[in-house]
Amino acid sequence: MRILPLIAAGVLAASSAFAQDLTKGAADIRDKALADPLAWNITESLTSEVGARMTGSPAMERARDWAVGKFRELGFENIKVEAFTTPTWSRGAESAEVVGPVPHKLAILGLGNSSPTPAGGLTAPIVVFKSYQAMLDQPPGSLSGKIAVVTQAMGRTQDGSSYGAVGAQRWAGAAEAAKRGAVGYLIRSLSTDDTRLPHTGGGLAGGIPAAALSPPDAELLERLADRGKPVTVKLQMASSTNPASPAWNISGEIRGKEKPDEVIVVGGHLDSWDPGTGAVDAAAGIGITTAAAKLVAQAGQPRRTIRVVMWGSEEQGGSSGAYAAAHKAEMGQMIMAGESDGGAGRIWTVSLPRAGADHAAMTAFRATLPKLNVAVSRAAPTNGGADIAGLMLGGVPFVDFGQDMSRYFDLHHSADDTLDKIDPKELAQNVAVWAAFLYTVANSDVDFRPKPAAEAK
Amino acid sequence: MRILPLIAAGVLAASSAFAQDLTKGAADIRDKALADPLAWNITESLTSEVGARMTGSPAMERARDWAVGKFRELGFENIKVEAFTTPTWSRGAESAEVVGPVPHKLAILGLGNSSPTPAGGLTAPIVVFKSYQAMLDQPPGSLSGKIAVVTQAMGRTQDGSSYGAVGAQRWAGAAEAAKRGAVGYLIRSLSTDDTRLPHTGGGLAGGIPAAALSPPDAELLERLADRGKPVTVKLQMASSTNPASPAWNISGEIRGKEKPDEVIVVGGHLDSWDPGTGAVDAAAGIGITTAAAKLVAQAGQPRRTIRVVMWGSEEQGGSSGAYAAAHKAEMGQMIMAGESDGGAGRIWTVSLPRAGADHAAMTAFRATLPKLNVAVSRAAPTNGGADIAGLMLGGVPFVDFGQDMSRYFDLHHSADDTLDKIDPKELAQNVAVWAAFLYTVANSDVDFRPKPAAEAK
Repeated sequence: MRILPLIAAGVLAASSAFAQDLTKGAADIRDKALADPLAWNITESLTSEVGARMTGSPAMERARDWAVGKFRELGFENIKVEAFTTPTWSRGAESAEVVGPVPHKLAILGLGNSSPTPAGGLTAPIVVFKSYQAMLDQPPGSLSGKIAVVTQAMGRTQDGSSYGAVGAQRWAGAAEAAKRGAVGYLIRSLSTDDTRLPHTGGGLAGGIPAAALSPPDAELLERLADRGKPVTVKLQMASSTNPASPAWNISGEIRGKEKPDEVIVVGGHLDSWDPGTGAVDAAAGIGITTAAAKLVAQAGQPRRTIRVVMWGSEEQGGSSGAYAAAHKAEMGQMIMAGESDGGAGRIWTVSLPRAGADHAAMTAFRATLPKLNVAVSRAAPTNGGADIAGLMLGGVPFVDFGQDMSRYFDLHHSADDTLDKIDPKELAQNVAVWAAFLYTVANSDVDFRPKPAAEAK
Repeated sequence: MRILPLIAAGVLAASSAFAQDLTKGAADIRDKALADPLAWNITESLTSEVGARMTGSPAMERARDWAVGKFRELGFENIKVEAFTTPTWSRGAESAEVVGPVPHKLAILGLGNSSPTPAGGLTAPIVVFKSYQAMLDQPPGSLSGKIAVVTQAMGRTQDGSSYGAVGAQRWAGAAEAAKRGAVGYLIRSLSTDDTRLPHTGGGLAGGIPAAALSPPDAELLERLADRGKPVTVKLQMASSTNPASPAWNISGEIRGKEKPDEVIVVGGHLDSWDPGTGAVDAAAGIGITTAAAKLVAQAGQPRRTIRVVMWGSEEQGGSSGAYAAAHKAEMGQMIMAGESDGGAGRIWTVSLPRAGADHAAMTAFRATLPKLNVAVSRAAPTNGGADIAGLMLGGVPFVDFGQDMSRYFDLHHSADDTLDKIDPKELAQNVAVWAAFLYTVANSDVDFRPKPAAEAK
């Protein structure tokens, strides 16, 4: 069939009885979602009954069992526990203190892949760099015997883009400091908050101890260093690593009635960092996508299958590749993939693949958004999610539902990532967007894959 | 001299050349204070160069030396270090965790005068009370073998009055829990924040381990208890006490030119709790009052003496009584006393003793306040300050300068009490109020003591 100009196609489709039903159904499910407590209840359950759950820890086994139990309890079908192994890092006892010119206890959290210190600790003078670039500008050997400290701060942004902008000081910094001779590495946490709670996260192994300072501690080190006298810090860190920890991607399905093999893959990651209870990162994402799928099921068995995946190793990596490898044969039939991993702030923008964006199903979906105060972006999706990266590389279409991340990095990877930080109304708004989207995709034949040029003419 | 009706007296006095000079001088010193960095610099110095300083700790000796050095550096005269002893409590290693039905690490801080646990820790089932009264309603013996947990929350108030309203759960709770048989006691921190940082503070010894939970941890225990299954907590605390720790009240003076024996006593407390660096509680008070006195000196030697006192044991008690005992003979000549111990928020209300309130000096002081957005309260002062309580009992007049405490209890007694939480402009506004007040009192003959009835007629 010849493709009509995009807008006209949408108008035409919307005029059909099918489109009218879809539009009404999407509006209904949106309104139900706004009053539905399931996402909150799932998030509460995971954070209270399991809590912190690092891949490779005993808590992750409890999380796995929780996931299977939750899928069963909610009536999901075809529940699968797909095992894989992945390298993991585990925190031990940690402490840091200024030992001179005056003693101060420092609030730190070791970074993933940090080396431990010797058993008696590591004591060395610090060199403070107020930007990451200033450290990179140092020649090899120039930091010999020193603890390098990078105190660059992170800005607050609605789209979370500041995380990427300053992320290298955590991701690559220990390795870069080690290249220059440093025996230890400290950063100001990638955080937009000003509490004494540091924020952990993954990084490349540099072969030296590496940790994040709370922002006030980073500022204290700046002020002490600004006095011009040597400042000495003692670090004690007892971390360990496991080259092949067991991990699991766990999934459950709302099976499609007409096209069960056409699969929509959505979900969140089950693992978390250890200092908090992994509420915004990402029990919320599990709650949002699971509740959205359940709402679609409650509206009547959909035409296509919706699969919710609770990925088992996002923070330390591994679940995306494992999932893509296990589902390679099926990727051609995956309608789309999506991950909710931006916390629990409301969705403020959605970005849809250009192909399919003007199908009647997406017209029906877009009609649900004004009430939810969501803008449709003109840009094509670019982020997707870390756990669907393998599917994205395999050509599976994906969406970006941009959450308001203004407050996310106050909490992310810190002890403050707890349930109380989640606003149930904002959580429900997320469910409404995902439920309306899943409903329209699962109950239509919308195809998000780019058409071959010949067919599109 | 017969006393004129109060308002008329003010008007009359304000018309004199003396009053005009005082009014201009007060306005000038206010404006200088708003641009003066000294209070900030003192606060920065104490928090960076000494940091946390609990009475009885080695840090307190460094704080004493810092105080003497700072008075000398600023040209204060008659510097005194007045030694006394006081009982103190000292924190040791602390940890807490839920051990069943599922493991969770808990963020706690032991409360002052808590008993330690046995070396291997204390493991017991918890009983959660959502109000302090609900625990008090339990009969003796009813909490036998249990850890009592009180999770009542504290409201946010501008005048800080919510602290007193819920304070008993910290002050008296461990003793009350022990009377009912409890083997341990936990409270939701007296905090208006929602971070995972607990807030410590003093309490009556109950003979059992007692600690504060962060608000999210208190809410987690509520949610676990609400599930109806037994919840077991393990506490490990290794505190110790010293019945007679050395402590010091340290003072310096701006000596009066005409009436050096008429002394105005102001200051803040030098000691702090241990988790933060004692910035808002109360390095700020030290900075504010010291800078205000210094500004008065810079405007020309005043008629009366201004004495700045850095009290040495407010948090654990002792400095007020020691100061009053050491200065008993002098109390009759003390013009007034004041303490800055409400943090670093701007002053929003001042309360002056009724006697003297309509003296020309106070008219001049009040004239400085509209620009500072400060209201004059109709109520007489009632609070004064913990360190001037002994002077207040001895009949020394005192003032209340009410600071905006809306954010104070986010920080108070927690690791978050650090310099970065202080707004330099709000700090300077405090200095402006204190400087204008000290200037007008020190350069006049205002008398705040109630007059005998016969004389006042």
